[in-house]
Amino acid sequence: MAFHSGRHFLQIPGPTNVPDRVLRAIDRPTIDHRGPEFPVLAREILAGLRRIFRTAGPVIIFPASGTGAWEAALTNALSPGDRILMSEKRNFSSLWKAMADRLGLSVEVIPGDWRHGADPAEIEARLASDSQHQIRAMAVVHNETSTGVTTRVSEVRAAIDRARHPALLLVDTISSLACVDYRHDDWRVDVTIAGSQKGLMLPPGLSFNAVSARALEAAKTARLARSYWDWQAMLQANESGYFPYTPATNLLYGLREALLLLEEEGLDKVFARHARHAEATRRAVRAWGLELNPLDQREHSNSLTAVRMPDGYDADRLRAVILERFDLSLGQGLGKQKGQLFRIGHLGHFNDLMLCGTLAGVEMGLRSAGVPHRPAGLAAATDYLASTG
Amino acid sequence: MAFHSGRHFLQIPGPTNVPDRVLRAIDRPTIDHRGPEFPVLAREILAGLRRIFRTAGPVIIFPASGTGAWEAALTNALSPGDRILMSEKRNFSSLWKAMADRLGLSVEVIPGDWRHGADPAEIEARLASDSQHQIRAMAVVHNETSTGVTTRVSEVRAAIDRARHPALLLVDTISSLACVDYRHDDWRVDVTIAGSQKGLMLPPGLSFNAVSARALEAAKTARLARSYWDWQAMLQANESGYFPYTPATNLLYGLREALLLLEEEGLDKVFARHARHAEATRRAVRAWGLELNPLDQREHSNSLTAVRMPDGYDADRLRAVILERFDLSLGQGLGKQKGQLFRIGHLGHFNDLMLCGTLAGVEMGLRSAGVPHRPAGLAAATDYLASTG
Amino acid sequence: MAFHSGRHFLQIPGPTNVPDRVLRAIDRPTIDHRGPEFPVLAREILAGLRRIFRTAGPVIIFPASGTGAWEAALTNALSPGDRILMSEKRNFSSLWKAMADRLGLSVEVIPGDWRHGADPAEIEARLASDSQHQIRAMAVVHNETSTGVTTRVSEVRAAIDRARHPALLLVDTISSLACVDYRHDDWRVDVTIAGSQKGLMLPPGLSFNAVSARALEAAKTARLARSYWDWQAMLQANESGYFPYTPATNLLYGLREALLLLEEEGLDKVFARHARHAEATRRAVRAWGLELNPLDQREHSNSLTAVRMPDGYDADRLRAVILERFDLSLGQGLGKQKGQLFRIGHLGHFNDLMLCGTLAGVEMGLRSAGVPHRPAGLAAATDYLASTG
Amino acid sequence: MAFHSGRHFLQIPGPTNVPDRVLRAIDRPTIDHRGPEFPVLAREILAGLRRIFRTAGPVIIFPASGTGAWEAALTNALSPGDRILMSEKRNFSSLWKAMADRLGLSVEVIPGDWRHGADPAEIEARLASDSQHQIRAMAVVHNETSTGVTTRVSEVRAAIDRARHPALLLVDTISSLACVDYRHDDWRVDVTIAGSQKGLMLPPGLSFNAVSARALEAAKTARLARSYWDWQAMLQANESGYFPYTPATNLLYGLREALLLLEEEGLDKVFARHARHAEATRRAVRAWGLELNPLDQREHSNSLTAVRMPDGYDADRLRAVILERFDLSLGQGLGKQKGQLFRIGHLGHFNDLMLCGTLAGVEMGLRSAGVPHRPAGLAAATDYLASTG
Repeated sequence: MAFHSGRHFLQIPGPTNVPDRVLRAIDRPTIDHRGPEFPVLAREILAGLRRIFRTAGPVIIFPASGTGAWEAALTNALSPGDRILMSEKRNFSSLWKAMADRLGLSVEVIPGDWRHGADPAEIEARLASDSQHQIRAMAVVHNETSTGVTTRVSEVRAAIDRARHPALLLVDTISSLACVDYRHDDWRVDVTIAGSQKGLMLPPGLSFNAVSARALEAAKTARLARSYWDWQAMLQANESGYFPYTPATNLLYGLREALLLLEEEGLDKVFARHARHAEATRRAVRAWGLELNPLDQREHSNSLTAVRMPDGYDADRLRAVILERFDLSLGQGLGKQKGQLFRIGHLGHFNDLMLCGTLAGVEMGLRSAGVPHRPAGLAAATDYLASTG
Repeated sequence: MAFHSGRHFLQIPGPTNVPDRVLRAIDRPTIDHRGPEFPVLAREILAGLRRIFRTAGPVIIFPASGTGAWEAALTNALSPGDRILMSEKRNFSSLWKAMADRLGLSVEVIPGDWRHGADPAEIEARLASDSQHQIRAMAVVHNETSTGVTTRVSEVRAAIDRARHPALLLVDTISSLACVDYRHDDWRVDVTIAGSQKGLMLPPGLSFNAVSARALEAAKTARLARSYWDWQAMLQANESGYFPYTPATNLLYGLREALLLLEEEGLDKVFARHARHAEATRRAVRAWGLELNPLDQREHSNSLTAVRMPDGYDADRLRAVILERFDLSLGQGLGKQKGQLFRIGHLGHFNDLMLCGTLAGVEMGLRSAGVPHRPAGLAAATDYLASTG
Repeated sequence: MAFHSGRHFLQIPGPTNVPDRVLRAIDRPTIDHRGPEFPVLAREILAGLRRIFRTAGPVIIFPASGTGAWEAALTNALSPGDRILMSEKRNFSSLWKAMADRLGLSVEVIPGDWRHGADPAEIEARLASDSQHQIRAMAVVHNETSTGVTTRVSEVRAAIDRARHPALLLVDTISSLACVDYRHDDWRVDVTIAGSQKGLMLPPGLSFNAVSARALEAAKTARLARSYWDWQAMLQANESGYFPYTPATNLLYGLREALLLLEEEGLDKVFARHARHAEATRRAVRAWGLELNPLDQREHSNSLTAVRMPDGYDADRLRAVILERFDLSLGQGLGKQKGQLFRIGHLGHFNDLMLCGTLAGVEMGLRSAGVPHRPAGLAAATDYLASTG
Repeated sequence: MAFHSGRHFLQIPGPTNVPDRVLRAIDRPTIDHRGPEFPVLAREILAGLRRIFRTAGPVIIFPASGTGAWEAALTNALSPGDRILMSEKRNFSSLWKAMADRLGLSVEVIPGDWRHGADPAEIEARLASDSQHQIRAMAVVHNETSTGVTTRVSEVRAAIDRARHPALLLVDTISSLACVDYRHDDWRVDVTIAGSQKGLMLPPGLSFNAVSARALEAAKTARLARSYWDWQAMLQANESGYFPYTPATNLLYGLREALLLLEEEGLDKVFARHARHAEATRRAVRAWGLELNPLDQREHSNSLTAVRMPDGYDADRLRAVILERFDLSLGQGLGKQKGQLFRIGHLGHFNDLMLCGTLAGVEMGLRSAGVPHRPAGLAAATDYLASTG
């Protein structure tokens, strides 16, 4: 690989740039996870996480990738053959469906495209028609990392309520938590799924379930086999500040530091920052004359921006040029959108000038790769950034 | 907590002391796990792991604790209701049994005490009596972390062979890998389970399955539900140097460095070092007039030493005194041995003087806590260390 | 201070951004500077430094700031009352003059402005007129960090030669070494002064003298008092890989890593990178309609760009706005240029997108601070960067 | 070099083991030393240092080794030809004398051996005889790092007072500060010299002068040439929280953390800890049947213990054996004591078990190297440690 001077720009939609303070916190001798020092750490983290998920209930930490937290949500809340409703609209939703299939659930998909979020009206209609309440759970992805589309979770909640349906609401916030306003308790979400490597600014390796009282109740009778992912064993051990098996102690050090960073900035300011950077990025994309992937104005992601390529141009070739020439990593189109779009992550530990460097890299890359565009995106973004914030 | 000057002595039997080089390797910006740089890292690690497990076959890395690797072994190799044979002799074996129960397997336990390893003769007898070959798998723990007893895996292998039984052989090497000689291929083990935080000298957060061709074959028809732990998806992605879901990149950096350290020292020297430190520790224990937990000379662990308390003395009180006064963490007795024994870890990143400091802490602690002993253990250990190695 | 998310842009002309690899190398246990491991480190560094200074002679390392290396150059080469010729043109030159005065030297200044480098013709004339050879040394600053002006050292050398004058040539390369082509031996420089925190990409705390045979000879009879800075004691100890007093071991670890980084990139590529970034920056400045401080085309610095403010606008207010709003540190005007100019550092561990972020910060800052300009600088820079390199 | 597993034991009398917290603090991006964030750091450190030196006056920080702080003391306080009184008793005192000679001072030495500290009675006698007050300064080393002898500075102060002599009192506390009780103000010391790499637990690269009002007054007329070391320029810049030239910012981060550690432990407890470890070490030495270098009971160092070899045995060979076999670095005999003694550092970031490991290494090394001794030292030390503290 060619030598690259200076800092790499890691602007995929996660893993995100890990702050030095977090890396340095991880870089500390491991302690005895059964000793008296450990519960001090654990309790501070468990309390801090509640503030981030905006819940008074428990948050469970798994030493696992985000995918593991999905599996935990399903295996704790459901039984073999249970029906679960999902929106087939995007890549990670599809992965979730595949997992549910493998675990022996009966997955029902509301068909759709990859340019819209889950549709509250469709969900309401489907649930209303389920008069027998055979559907046990409704699963949505808050922010689709693969398409840059955000589902309006509070409206999904309202739709379920209007349908007077008892389905559990499971929400994947892997790329929205600590980026976009999210309220586990207010929106009466039953299981919130999250991971460490996006808005929480950690390396990958931790994932989370925030769990409602209803979900805990459901877990008592749910019969999918589970052991590693079992909530009950976790909650019982957490009560005294411990874990039922060896926790990923050093990543927990990092988590403590990341929670401190979020509190120092203030969660509302974190959300405002993500919104402002997302808007600047969208203005850049429009000024380039390129198309944003989301079709509904209300569903633009504030974590990342998915940009569609003009017909006949390959997004992956553009990304390769940009990586080679400007040492900037962008996200690829996934699944059926491979080559059709690229994704700019603007989440996590980020600021105006990192965004300007990123957009400069994209704009210069479009030129280097010969992709038709107007070279006006960076100017549109700086114009917006200079006049706001 | 009281202020402690100097370095903590983390001599539980894992997590172990993480070398500075490994910590510093982890303390590095996360890279794009889908970019071109990643497979270089992945391939180097996957190749290095094979040398540690002494296998030509695949080793699978999970972003999970060691417990997860157990679950992976069971869910990939077995189907609901499958019969699995285990030795009920120790704490971690019990945990494994509990997991198997929860996953819907039919566990058969060879009863025993907690002071012996799995008995090859008993295993042979039981398998020989299973003329229908209803037992699908035999699971043993190579080194019982909770009791300091090592099972002679090569003899278990020979026992299975003599019984001409097709049971899969699953071996937990969580606290023996890279400490005690272990040979996945030579001993025809089907699944080897391991974790990062012991002999591999990493923080917790990664775990492993080394998998035989027979086990892979078995996985094709095994019907326990699995998704996160699925070998097939892993192996397929690993072929091109990638992972099916986000890997714990920073821990992988640490793993690369740890593998380098092991190769620099040389695996045979690593084993000899562990053996020598274990022998020095046993001499100290005997000189103190205390009792070693293992009853069979052939089954002493080289990773840790479990020391039994005189009747009427509480191991946990001793451990508390030692932690408070000498900033030394020792392992507790687990399960039914709680309070009856303490465990000295001498595995991983370790040397003669760290051992001397550790044994000095125990000896002074015995005195401080008023536990009857002869203060001759440290001298016995230094005598041995000075005359060997 | 307000919370700033993301990475700070440290674009003063030094200290520069320290690469993570260098920081992590420093973050390692200190070793015995009198033990057998130390000379391996020292020799590798001393050899590597010679390649950077382009000399076959010795390079001396002081545990000190760059200012200390100036003092070392003067005290080793000169005697009380010795006449030394300098160009009064810039701030750091002035500091050097003040130091020489304090040390009891007789300093003669060639007067001038702060927008030109040292003038080879003037130097030649003055030396030619010194028929008694009363001038013992000629001191120039290769790259004036305070003004962004580069002196053509090879032409100064030629001027001295034409004047057939035996003056020692002392050159300060604090902000040019490892940024701009520099040749200690080819240009027959007698003492080259350098520091760690600019092109060498280290934190401050180390400084250097590269020393010619003539300078060593002069030191034998030079009578300025010296002890800490004494070359002879250093060279004698260095022969066996040691130092006469405790070296700054951890910074030496960092130096080893920084030298590796420079070799991986290749020194010629390092120079080309600095030249390209400097040209892009100058294009931005001109496009903004602002004035560059250097007046001679041949004397533009490749390490930093000094930008003059329009009359009536305060550079320090602009810098404060930029720091507050965009978390970008720029250099201030020093001495009599305070408030009249600001300086953009583009040296050390740096790349295209870091430069784009930096220039975006300046351009948005000019707007925020109400400084008259055309918002076309960033575009001019990206235009140049995209079409080159 | 042979591979060594585990942590190196760095038990030279400095540099000492740097705590992880300090290393990690250093491992942080460098900031603008002229920006608004810097004075916050500087003021916190300058205030903290005053508490360590126990002075209400200024403490000056040099980016330099301890040797530089000596030079600073001499050049600021004295003029060429000034007479300075010193005790020729030990190696570092000799170095100091050599430096004073080189700087053009007139050094008068009170002759003596290397096994006693400076003698207050002799000092009183000599000063009393100097009726003309030609002696400008009296210089002593609080703790002689090369011999393990501590001078009773408060008694030296009383001796000067009794002689009614106006000599400035200069004290080197390089290996005693933050190890042994020291009081700059109470003992009316005029200049205290210190370094970063011993009791302050930092890597080498910073050094210090605590300065009395009398010393500052003397500096106004002192005529030794000085620039880098000039107190006045430092104090003036420090007033606003800045430095006259680039400070070693990253080491200052480490200093802040080290000061925090000392305050967390409490300075009196730090002294008690050093005293207890020193006593344990002396008991070990006596039990081995070896001889301590200091001959006066009141002058044993609490920072290090200098141990004399039996006749005919080479200390450096012993040290080489111990380093090779047990990865333990000990200090060598310096100057005329080379080969005659070795030194055990027990200062800085240290605790009981690190000391036990160290003494075990020495005891086993004595055996390996065939040095006559009774193998009872480690037991004597643990006996003492267990019964105290």
